[in-house]
Amino acid sequence: MAFLNVVPLEEALRIVDGFRERLARREKEVVKLEEALGRVLAEDVVSPMDVPPFDRATVDGYAVRSRDTFMAGDGNPVELRVIGEVNAGETYGGELGEGTCVYISTGAPLPAGADAVIQFEDVEREGDVVRIYRPAYPGLGVMKRGSDLAKGELILRKGKRLTFKDTALLSAVGMSEVSVLRKLRVAVVSTGNEVILPGEKLSEGRIYDVNGRAVSDAVRSAGEEAVFLGVVRDSLKEIEEAIRRGAECCDVVILSGGASGGTRDLTAKAVSKLGRVLVHGIAIQPGKPTIIGEVNGKPVFGLPGYPTSCLTNFTLLVMPLLSGDIRRERARKRLAHKVFSVKGRRQFLPVRIDGDKAIPILKGSGAVTSFVSADGFIEIPENVEILDEGEEVEVTLFGA
Amino acid sequence: MAFLNVVPLEEALRIVDGFRERLARREKEVVKLEEALGRVLAEDVVSPMDVPPFDRATVDGYAVRSRDTFMAGDGNPVELRVIGEVNAGETYGGELGEGTCVYISTGAPLPAGADAVIQFEDVEREGDVVRIYRPAYPGLGVMKRGSDLAKGELILRKGKRLTFKDTALLSAVGMSEVSVLRKLRVAVVSTGNEVILPGEKLSEGRIYDVNGRAVSDAVRSAGEEAVFLGVVRDSLKEIEEAIRRGAECCDVVILSGGASGGTRDLTAKAVSKLGRVLVHGIAIQPGKPTIIGEVNGKPVFGLPGYPTSCLTNFTLLVMPLLSGDIRRERARKRLAHKVFSVKGRRQFLPVRIDGDKAIPILKGSGAVTSFVSADGFIEIPENVEILDEGEEVEVTLFGA
Repeated sequence: MAFLNVVPLEEALRIVDGFRERLARREKEVVKLEEALGRVLAEDVVSPMDVPPFDRATVDGYAVRSRDTFMAGDGNPVELRVIGEVNAGETYGGELGEGTCVYISTGAPLPAGADAVIQFEDVEREGDVVRIYRPAYPGLGVMKRGSDLAKGELILRKGKRLTFKDTALLSAVGMSEVSVLRKLRVAVVSTGNEVILPGEKLSEGRIYDVNGRAVSDAVRSAGEEAVFLGVVRDSLKEIEEAIRRGAECCDVVILSGGASGGTRDLTAKAVSKLGRVLVHGIAIQPGKPTIIGEVNGKPVFGLPGYPTSCLTNFTLLVMPLLSGDIRRERARKRLAHKVFSVKGRRQFLPVRIDGDKAIPILKGSGAVTSFVSADGFIEIPENVEILDEGEEVEVTLFGA
Repeated sequence: MAFLNVVPLEEALRIVDGFRERLARREKEVVKLEEALGRVLAEDVVSPMDVPPFDRATVDGYAVRSRDTFMAGDGNPVELRVIGEVNAGETYGGELGEGTCVYISTGAPLPAGADAVIQFEDVEREGDVVRIYRPAYPGLGVMKRGSDLAKGELILRKGKRLTFKDTALLSAVGMSEVSVLRKLRVAVVSTGNEVILPGEKLSEGRIYDVNGRAVSDAVRSAGEEAVFLGVVRDSLKEIEEAIRRGAECCDVVILSGGASGGTRDLTAKAVSKLGRVLVHGIAIQPGKPTIIGEVNGKPVFGLPGYPTSCLTNFTLLVMPLLSGDIRRERARKRLAHKVFSVKGRRQFLPVRIDGDKAIPILKGSGAVTSFVSADGFIEIPENVEILDEGEEVEVTLFGA
């Protein structure tokens, strides 16, 4: 085609990054904390309070004024009078005077005047008197107000995808609502005259869709919303119509090609009619047929048809858009056997992980079994022709 | 208490395993493939068809009878007559006779009579004649019917939690529905007189709930359903009522204790009134206050109140119940600095992971910041008092 525009991966990633920044500025919405798991924070969160909100006993025992105990020794106990009791959830009304103490349970607030808690196992009690054999220092057995989290402290950053630990943290500082980005909507389209959907009757020459389901569910696994628009035939009109619909209802449009090379040209043609083709082929293997375009200001991706190639390009190019702090996860492994590459070709080779080994998958990226067994891929740079058995490699993981 | 029954971790895990087996036999339901992501397979899946369902071209080129090309050589091309064309999604009606070939595109079914596909780049074409300079062997450029997946082949095992790769695999074999276990329902209860929920007004001596949110959302992250029953006070009546409700509406009940030691006894008392206490304390640190019981045949867990301790015991004891193939994930790391333990105490120490280092968290398991920064824990066996800096340790991960 006239506008063929094969670019290095870095150039494609720069374009994706522009889209990523734009999408990160999408609408916010306030959700209840119970609904916040997996959502992406729209704003930095600073703690609205001190945690703990009061000086808190960390053991069951006796709240004391530490200076009353400084003279205590093994053969020379200090005696204090127990003047009350305070349990978790309660407060002690009075104030400790010299020579007095209060029985306190873990989690209860320190009475006024007290600055230490001595574990009950470390004292002797007789009636309303306790005998203390070792001096307490200020702060013993106490978690100071704000020592865990201070009011005004930055506790979570904008863009963070909330895990169960994050929602628990928000709960700890009393937040019942949180401002998050609305979910991204990703339109997914499968293309190819030979492709049909499960539930349809299989006739000669047809195969069932793989990429539509894979991409839709990978988007959902990443925490965003997928809108699967189904399968369209290798027709300019049908592909154009699918992209138009996708760019209307969604923030991102992803097409995956049929096996035919013609699909690629049709996708590029349709994108150029509706908007602009930005990338027409990436100088990586697999990735030559990959297209990135823009329609209504929205990114449109045309990914390769072979499932493993589709997933590799999805992981490289689309995952960075799926907002929040999801990055490509990596693991260092050792290559299970020697692999060869072609000089001048920057290759991404699917591998299966077994313990600390990365086992190259050589069945071919058209096989569903390759796709299912691949845990990720390794990169073989342009200037490398051989990677030896046992060599350390970095595996970019597909996730699950 | 009279029925104090501290057991080794292995004994507790054996009891959990009994519950796990029982829960794995819960009701099945059939869901549409679009809804199957993250669900647990109720039955083994065997492929209902061959994939590909026909001999399929893997390149664009010419479908030939390989024996017609055996005499081809560099200076001695074989000429074949092109008698037609077949594209992906189509079928070729006729049969190849001697000396003929058919133009075929990637993904199209091989015409009858053909047994190889020669890439178009490897031949010369002039009008309806192609010149072939190298012999093709049977199977060249062809993916044989059933070579990817064979009809009747086991493709997914019962109990597997479906990832996007699994749903794509089910799509590839044309399955539009799948039989899964209904979601587990887990009742979650926070206890403690001092504990209130976000949104409630903080008064002196109170703190906001951490564990209720953490456990509920950890259950959801694992793909099951959480029913948060809120906070109950340290009262036998309230705890009993919460357990009764949980055991009615759910498959599993999880309580997490307040800071007070008394909660533990109340939970045990309530469980023994409604059913049976099976474990009253586990011989690990943390875990001494952990309770496992059975009410209406359903497992009831009383977990420690300190967030990090609660999460550690949740990961050890409850995660194995959250069906499917979710196992405790582990990573081998090097200890960032020396730690000491007490001889005779089997300790689980929370750590943060930074690169290949495991950094022990020493702030104390009562701190929310400990909880948030902990990525997992390491085990220090009873007979070990010191783990040295740089020593290799196995980290059990909390997940996210």
